[in-house]
Amino acid sequence: MKNVPFYNLKVTGGFWAERQKTVAEKTVWAVYDRFKETGRIETMDCKPHAVKPHIFWGSDVVKWMEGAAYILEQGEDARLRAAVDEIIKMIEVATTEDGYYNSYFNSPDHEGKRFTDRDKHELYSLGHMIEAAVALSHLGDDRLLKVCEKNVALVDRIFRQEDSAGFTTPGHEEIELALVRLWKATGEEKYLELAEFFVRKRGTSPKDVPVYRKDDGSGIQSHRPMMEQTTAEGHAVRATYLYSAVADLALALKDEELKELAEALFEDIYERKMYITGGIGSGHQGERFTVPYHLPNRNAYAETCAALGLAIFARRMYQMEPDGRYGDAAERALYNGMISGLSLEGDSFFYTNPLEMDLSYEKIPMGYSPNMERQKVFGCSCCPPNLTRVVPSIGDFVYTYDEKYLYVHQYIATEGSVDGGEVRMETAYPADGRVKIFCTGKKLALRKPAWCTEMVTDAAYTEKKGYLYFETEAVEIEFVMKPVFYTASDAVHEDAGRVALMRGPIVYCIESKDQPKRVFQCRVDADAPVKETGETYGGFPVLEAAGALAVAQKALYIPYKAAEKEPCTLRFIPYYTFANRGADDMQVWILKK
Amino acid sequence: MKNVPFYNLKVTGGFWAERQKTVAEKTVWAVYDRFKETGRIETMDCKPHAVKPHIFWGSDVVKWMEGAAYILEQGEDARLRAAVDEIIKMIEVATTEDGYYNSYFNSPDHEGKRFTDRDKHELYSLGHMIEAAVALSHLGDDRLLKVCEKNVALVDRIFRQEDSAGFTTPGHEEIELALVRLWKATGEEKYLELAEFFVRKRGTSPKDVPVYRKDDGSGIQSHRPMMEQTTAEGHAVRATYLYSAVADLALALKDEELKELAEALFEDIYERKMYITGGIGSGHQGERFTVPYHLPNRNAYAETCAALGLAIFARRMYQMEPDGRYGDAAERALYNGMISGLSLEGDSFFYTNPLEMDLSYEKIPMGYSPNMERQKVFGCSCCPPNLTRVVPSIGDFVYTYDEKYLYVHQYIATEGSVDGGEVRMETAYPADGRVKIFCTGKKLALRKPAWCTEMVTDAAYTEKKGYLYFETEAVEIEFVMKPVFYTASDAVHEDAGRVALMRGPIVYCIESKDQPKRVFQCRVDADAPVKETGETYGGFPVLEAAGALAVAQKALYIPYKAAEKEPCTLRFIPYYTFANRGADDMQVWILKK
Repeated sequence: MKNVPFYNLKVTGGFWAERQKTVAEKTVWAVYDRFKETGRIETMDCKPHAVKPHIFWGSDVVKWMEGAAYILEQGEDARLRAAVDEIIKMIEVATTEDGYYNSYFNSPDHEGKRFTDRDKHELYSLGHMIEAAVALSHLGDDRLLKVCEKNVALVDRIFRQEDSAGFTTPGHEEIELALVRLWKATGEEKYLELAEFFVRKRGTSPKDVPVYRKDDGSGIQSHRPMMEQTTAEGHAVRATYLYSAVADLALALKDEELKELAEALFEDIYERKMYITGGIGSGHQGERFTVPYHLPNRNAYAETCAALGLAIFARRMYQMEPDGRYGDAAERALYNGMISGLSLEGDSFFYTNPLEMDLSYEKIPMGYSPNMERQKVFGCSCCPPNLTRVVPSIGDFVYTYDEKYLYVHQYIATEGSVDGGEVRMETAYPADGRVKIFCTGKKLALRKPAWCTEMVTDAAYTEKKGYLYFETEAVEIEFVMKPVFYTASDAVHEDAGRVALMRGPIVYCIESKDQPKRVFQCRVDADAPVKETGETYGGFPVLEAAGALAVAQKALYIPYKAAEKEPCTLRFIPYYTFANRGADDMQVWILKK
Repeated sequence: MKNVPFYNLKVTGGFWAERQKTVAEKTVWAVYDRFKETGRIETMDCKPHAVKPHIFWGSDVVKWMEGAAYILEQGEDARLRAAVDEIIKMIEVATTEDGYYNSYFNSPDHEGKRFTDRDKHELYSLGHMIEAAVALSHLGDDRLLKVCEKNVALVDRIFRQEDSAGFTTPGHEEIELALVRLWKATGEEKYLELAEFFVRKRGTSPKDVPVYRKDDGSGIQSHRPMMEQTTAEGHAVRATYLYSAVADLALALKDEELKELAEALFEDIYERKMYITGGIGSGHQGERFTVPYHLPNRNAYAETCAALGLAIFARRMYQMEPDGRYGDAAERALYNGMISGLSLEGDSFFYTNPLEMDLSYEKIPMGYSPNMERQKVFGCSCCPPNLTRVVPSIGDFVYTYDEKYLYVHQYIATEGSVDGGEVRMETAYPADGRVKIFCTGKKLALRKPAWCTEMVTDAAYTEKKGYLYFETEAVEIEFVMKPVFYTASDAVHEDAGRVALMRGPIVYCIESKDQPKRVFQCRVDADAPVKETGETYGGFPVLEAAGALAVAQKALYIPYKAAEKEPCTLRFIPYYTFANRGADDMQVWILKK
C-alpha cells in the first residue's frame, strides 16, 4: 500500500475545512504571537538575550514552521512566508561549522554541553527541525533541509559511528520518525539506518539513564530492550512518537518482528489504556500510561499531543494493513481528545483533556488539578504548534492505495488525485453519515466505522477486518448515525455505573451551564431515546437525553431514603467543545438514573 | 463541667477491653521492638551511632513511653517499667546544662542548630515529651517531668521573653496542648501562658515561613492570624492538635472568642471535610484538608493520627459543652478511621486509611497509591505509638460531670468513681445498643448517638442538643441498633450514586474475597433489608445485603445494553478490620443497584 499525501488532496468542506480555515487564519498567528512575546522567536538566533531559551523552545518554533509550510501549500501568504524566512535565516547563521544547531545548546550559557544530557530534548528538537525542513522542501525551499542534513551527519558520527555522546538514545523520542521522513524525502538509506539504530538501541545501553526520579526507565521507554517492550509504557507522547517510528520501520524494512511489536503496542493501548475520547496517558505524574484500565476521568492527563501521537501511530498502522481498529483509534483521537485541545475560536488551548471537570476542586491546595480554562499560551508549549501541524495536513489520514484498491480510512470531504486518477469524496461526515466516493481506476475499500451498526448502500461488498471491499470505482453509502450510549469495560472502575453518549465518532459531554443543576447532581436515563435538538454546536447536533436530578442532600451523611428523583432533560454538546463558553463543570461519563 | 480521667475508670468489657488487652500484651512490644531495630531507642542518648536519628524519632519514643505509662497504670509489668526507665535515664543524661533535650539536635551532627528551623518538629517533640512526663508523673515518677520543666523554661525564655529563635511558633503543633496538660499537672500558670502565646502568635510572625513548597502557609495553619482561621486547613494532624489546644484554652481561660473559633473549626470539619469513618485530611499531598466536600475514597489520606486528632479535639469540645455532634465525631473516628490503623493481631498498622482499595492500582508508576498491606513499621512512625497512647486511656472519652449531672459521652463498659461517688456502665456497645448506667449522687445526661433513630427506655427524659437528660441516678436504655444504609451529601461527588452501610457507629465495608466478584463489579440493593449473619468479625456482626453483579464487559467501550443484572449476596465486615486477611480490594461507598 502507498500513502496519498495531503498535498494531493484538497479538503472541500465539513469539519476539517472549517478547522483548517481557523488554523490558517487565526491559530497559526496566535501561536506565532505568543512565541514572539515569550522570546521563543528571537532566541532562535542563539545570541545573548534578556530571556534564556528553554530546552524545548526551538522545537516549538520549528513545529510552528512545519505547520506554516502546510498552510502555505494551500495558498501563498507573504506575511507568513516572511515570518518563516526570518527564522530559517536565524537558524542558518547560528548553525556551527560542524553542522550543529540547537537554540539552547548554541546559546551562550550552554556551549560545550551538547550531546551530554539525555534529558535535554536535543535530538527531539532536531527531529522536529527535520520535519519542518521536509515540509519546507516540498514548498521548494531547501535551506533548512541542508542545515538538517549536516546536522544529521554530525549526529550519525557522534552517536552511531563513534558512540561518543553521553547517551545512546534520546530521552524524548521524535528523531526516529523524522529520520524516516528524511529518508523518504531524500532517498538516502543512511537516514533510515540511523532511525533503525535509535529504535533498536533503545533500552539496551548502560549510558541511557532514566529521566524521571523513582522510575525504572519505563517513563521514557527505556526499561528493557525495545523489542521486548510489548506493552505501552511511560510518557504517552514520547511513546507514540517512538511506536510510530517502529511502525515506519516495520513497513520500510518489511520487518515482521517490528510489525508484531507495533501491533502489540497498539493493541495494549486500544484495548486497555485509551479513553473513549482517544485520549491516552492517564497519569499526570510522568504524563504517562499507568496500569491497564486505570482511566480516571477528573484527573486524566490525556495530553493533546498524546492523542495526536495515537492518531499518527494508528495512521501508520493502517497504512501498513487495513484493520478497522486502527482507523477507529485515529478517528476517536482526532475528533475528540486531540481537537478538544483547540478552542472553537482557534486562539486558546488545552494541554490536558480530562473527561470530567469540577470547578469546586480548582483550588485544591498542593494536589494536582488540571487547567479548567483554555489558555492562550503554556510554558511548555508543545500542543499548540502540534495542532497547527496536524490540522492543515489532515488529508494525510484519508487514503492509501495499492494496485487494485483505494483504501478509505477516514471520511473527509476531499478531492484530488491518486495514482494518476481522480479521487473525490462528498460527505458532511461526521455531522452526517452519508458518503459518496469516486476514484478513477481503483476499486474501493471502505473502513466500516467501529461505532457503526447499520449501513445503507445499494452496492455489493465483502467485509474483512473492519473494511468493506467493493468491486466498483464509485460507492454511495450511509453509515447510519444516531446517538448511542456506551458503557466501559467492567475493569474500568472509574466508569462503573456510568454511560457516555456518542453520535458517530463524536463523544459528547454535559456542562453545568446547560443543565438544571451541576452535572454531578445529574443522572441520565440510558434507556430513553436521545433527541437531536435541531441546534448545532461546534458543527455537530446538540443532543438532549432524559435524566433525573439526584435527591438534594445538604447534611454530610444521612440514612438512605428511596426518594423519587425529579425528572429533567440533559443537554449534550460535543466533548471537544467543552469550556468554550468559560470554565465549567463537565462530565463525559454520567451516572445512570 | 469536669473531666473524669481514665485513671478513675476501669474498662470492664467489650470492644475496648479487648483492644486494651491486645495493645498491652502485643502492640506496645511490637512498637518497642521496631523502635529498637530501627535505632530509635539507642539514639535517645544523643551519642554518635551508626544510624542517625531523624527529627521525629525522639517524639516516636516518648509517645511510646506515654502509652507504656498508661499500661503500667493498669498493673505493674517489670519488663515494661525497665524499658521505660532505661529511656528516662538516657534523656536525663543527654539533657544539656541549660535544660535542652532533643535526640536530633543534641546528637553530634546538629549541635548549635537548635531553635533555628521551624520545620524540624522540635517543639512538637518537646510537647510529646511533656505528655509522657505528665503520664509518668501520675505513676509516681517525676524524673521526666523535671527534665521537661527545665526544657520548657528554656523555651519560654527563648520564644516568649527574648523572641530570639529563628521562628515564633512551631511548624508542627503539639506543644500547645501539652503545655495545657503541664499546667493542669503542676498548677503553674506560666505553662498555660506559654500555650496561649504559641496559639495567639500563630500566623502573625514574619519569621514563620511556610514549610511546604507552593503553599500559602495554610499547610501548617500559618496563612493568617489564628483568630481569623475559621476553616480547617492544612495538615490534618497538626490542625487537630492545634484546634485541641484552642479548645483547651477556651475552657481554661473561659474565653468566648476562642470557644467560637473552636466551634467554627469543628463545624467546618464535621459538616464538610470528614469521611463517614471520621477520617480527615483527604489530600495525600500535604496530608491535609483540601476543599469542602472533596472526599475521594481511593486516595484518601485519612491518616490514623488525624482521626485520633479529630477524636481528641471533639472530646475537648464535649468537655466544654454537651452537643451531640462532638460525641458523634469522636465516636466515628475512634471506631472506624482511627482503630482501622491497628490490625486485629495488634502488631501491624495502617498510616493512611482510604475508603477504597484497588489492588490493580497498586503498581501505578509514579502516581500516589496508598499502602495496601498493613505494615510492621513505618519510616514516619507517628501512628503506632499514638495508638498505644489512646487505646489504654480510652476511658478519658467517657464522662464529664457537673454538680447535678454525669454526662455520658461515649458508651464503654466501665466502673469507677466520679466526684466521690460510684459510677458503673454495663453495655456491650457498640456490638449491642443496650446500656445500663448508674452513678451515685448524679443525675444522668446521655448522648443520643447521631445514628440512633429509635430508643427504648422506661425512664422519662428531656432532650437538648443531642443529649437526653434524666432525673434519675440509674438509667436503662436501648439505642436500637440495626444496619442502615447512608448516603452522602450531593456535594460529595465521589459518593454520588453510592451508599455506605453502618450498624450503630460501626461503618462497614466489602472486600473482594467475600464477594462472588471483585468489589468494583458489585452493586448493592439499598432498598432490601440487611441480614445479620450470626457470625462476628472484629467483635461485630458480619452483615449480608442483597446486591447484583454488574454485567461483565471485556471490550473497552461498547454500546449500552439494558441487560439484566445477576443477583448476588454481598458480605460486609466492619471497616476497621479491612486488610486483616491480606491485601484486598475494598469499598465503603458501594454503587446502588
